[in-house]
Amino acid sequence: MSTPLEEAMDTLIRIFHHYSGKEGDRYKLNKELKELLTGELTDFLSGQKDPLLVDNIMKDLDSNKDNEVDFNEFVILVAALTVACNDFF
Amino acid sequence: MSTPLEEAMDTLIRIFHHYSGKEGDRYKLNKELKELLTGELTDFLSGQKDPLLVDNIMKDLDSNKDNEVDFNEFVILVAALTVACNDFF
Repeated sequence: MSTPLEEAMDTLIRIFHHYSGKEGDRYKLNKELKELLTGELTDFLSGQKDPLLVDNIMKDLDSNKDNEVDFNEFVILVAALTVACNDFF
Repeated sequence: MSTPLEEAMDTLIRIFHHYSGKEGDRYKLNKELKELLTGELTDFLSGQKDPLLVDNIMKDLDSNKDNEVDFNEFVILVAALTVACNDFF
């Protein structure tokens, strides 16, 4: 039996792999990131009016400038978004 | 309707607040961190033999040396553990 925290961690891994495996390097997100964010964070993004938001997130995340986001970079994004959401609580 | 990713983020917030609110500053974990890790990461910790592991995690996390872990520091821990687990997949 997994705990809720372990399940949350498992969800992060599962979602990343679901999208990263679609094309190119299967351990990295390229244009799949946009698909992941718009598909999995609909509530969060529906409040945003900036059409360049996802492109800017991608640029910020892609610290090594290879136009790809690895699992480490993805988890840092999720952490940042969770902290942002946490301000509302 | 929330997506699985939004639910995972919500779980992180809920678990943090559940423990951080127990005593002292309700937005920070002090000795509650040990309780959180042993209560919520049983599978992960059951594989560990090092009795100082949780103390060492606390020291590493507590970047500002106040013996407390805020939500930001907690999410970084979860990210690090998720990446560690991801190597097994």
